[in-house]
Amino acid sequence: MSRVYDLAQIKSVLRSIQVIPEIERGFVAYSKGRAVIPPVGELQFKEPPGETHIKYGYLLDDDFYVIKIASGFFESPASNRYTSDGLMLLFKKGTGELVCVLQDECYLTNVRTAAAGAVSAKYLAPKDLECIGVVGAGTQGRMQLEYLAHVTHCREVMVWDIDRSALDDYKKDMEPLGYRVRTVLSTEDICAHCNLIVTATPSKSPLLSADKIRKGTHITAVGSDTPEKNELDPAILQKADIVVTDSISQCLLRGEIHHALAAGVLEKERIVELGSVITSPNLRRRSEEQITVADLTGVAVQDIQIAKAVYHGLKEIE
Amino acid sequence: MSRVYDLAQIKSVLRSIQVIPEIERGFVAYSKGRAVIPPVGELQFKEPPGETHIKYGYLLDDDFYVIKIASGFFESPASNRYTSDGLMLLFKKGTGELVCVLQDECYLTNVRTAAAGAVSAKYLAPKDLECIGVVGAGTQGRMQLEYLAHVTHCREVMVWDIDRSALDDYKKDMEPLGYRVRTVLSTEDICAHCNLIVTATPSKSPLLSADKIRKGTHITAVGSDTPEKNELDPAILQKADIVVTDSISQCLLRGEIHHALAAGVLEKERIVELGSVITSPNLRRRSEEQITVADLTGVAVQDIQIAKAVYHGLKEIE
Repeated sequence: MSRVYDLAQIKSVLRSIQVIPEIERGFVAYSKGRAVIPPVGELQFKEPPGETHIKYGYLLDDDFYVIKIASGFFESPASNRYTSDGLMLLFKKGTGELVCVLQDECYLTNVRTAAAGAVSAKYLAPKDLECIGVVGAGTQGRMQLEYLAHVTHCREVMVWDIDRSALDDYKKDMEPLGYRVRTVLSTEDICAHCNLIVTATPSKSPLLSADKIRKGTHITAVGSDTPEKNELDPAILQKADIVVTDSISQCLLRGEIHHALAAGVLEKERIVELGSVITSPNLRRRSEEQITVADLTGVAVQDIQIAKAVYHGLKEIE
Repeated sequence: MSRVYDLAQIKSVLRSIQVIPEIERGFVAYSKGRAVIPPVGELQFKEPPGETHIKYGYLLDDDFYVIKIASGFFESPASNRYTSDGLMLLFKKGTGELVCVLQDECYLTNVRTAAAGAVSAKYLAPKDLECIGVVGAGTQGRMQLEYLAHVTHCREVMVWDIDRSALDDYKKDMEPLGYRVRTVLSTEDICAHCNLIVTATPSKSPLLSADKIRKGTHITAVGSDTPEKNELDPAILQKADIVVTDSISQCLLRGEIHHALAAGVLEKERIVELGSVITSPNLRRRSEEQITVADLTGVAVQDIQIAKAVYHGLKEIE
């Protein structure tokens, strides 16, 4: 019978895995048309309100295919208490045999999202980072910082959240890891001091406005993964010199780019895929003055890459 | 961690489960609009050729949702050697928690398909069955007979297949179970002697022609589940007094009805859903002379029902 691995096992093996290069390889394969990724499957629930997403696919050059199931439920129509859960299934191509169940409770989704943020910063952020701005002091706001540590030496952090106690917790949690964290109650402070900004909130209205963004800033927006969510003023994408996404087909339907296109301030032709940026240096910033934006809505190719890497890691220690 | 159950455990608990009424309840809920069933997810493979289907959904009145993954691969582009595999996942609504993995290797799909055939015969076949005709001596041709035994006393069987040795094997396997099996090399013999006919082949051209079907016959077609497959001459559906399907939305795109609609010999308004036939006696045959056809392409609601029933059965014996 196929092995089921729990979160503790997955977390322990993750330490020995080079996640960032795996995610990079996934983006490159995706942008080269070497990945088969059907549209996301969606199951909506009214009571209690929630949704389940099914992301799946495979790389043409691989022996496996991966199906990821991730859910999010609110406890009741009134509450704001949210539960997420999820797992990844790895199957053998050619037989359909289930290889393993990674019962990661959505943790690997958080990891692959944070790793994509690090990939974006690696190829798009300016050389000298003064301060990293984090908008949203939640789980993803923490993990982005953890993975950014692999691609920058900057440990200066400014964090914003709508919730003051969340800010205090963030500072308390992240300072022992080697960061110097300043908490702020206005995103304008972040725009004024940070030249790398990561937004990681479920906001449905813009948190950053275009006129506050300084020259030379790179912004990675990871919070918006639905048609409704929106963290950046569309004028930021208009103003940006380079606009990057993980998936062009997906960003037409959801995320920041989708809003900028709808507002008529961004031309589809200006959008570049992260996988292309990785392979083509001429698509990256050409000066320390340029503004760059990476809008990441999350693609199954990231799930495929991390599931395979974790599986291989688990097999090695058995 | 969630329990994974293997095929042996699933088979042993199946004996104590009343599958047919569970499947009936599923069809009724579906036809009453009490089931949420998104479109089937599909993953296509070129080398080796194959496909994986994801069927999923839930009943509004239930505490669970179910995701079924089923794959079929040919060993190579040249071979006809086919491997199918699959599993069902049961999740808790409201939290998304994985309750169990039923690693049934597609067996439950075969069972729920056979049970749907039995439901069709129960509500549509004529009262006195002379002989059951089975077109296609494969796994499903065997299982249809097994489940029909729950709804008819008839044990006279006539079986056709393109493969002579498959016919001999069928007879050898099924006679010890109490059936009297005659093997034939022409489906015309089946049409001449049987007033309940089940077709269970992957044929892409019609195996039964309209002019051979006798009055009072009921046909259940379960083989065709794609837009290409086709077991019945579309004129059979034209000639039929009652045309039933498991899912109207699905039969517009795949199966026998889809071909008859395309040929212009069947009007959409004549199609009735099996769930409605179960609840409305006036939709069933009104004489022993009428010809009835049930075209079953397989709906996720069947997977949902059988997964829940097996899970409850497994829990009881623990």
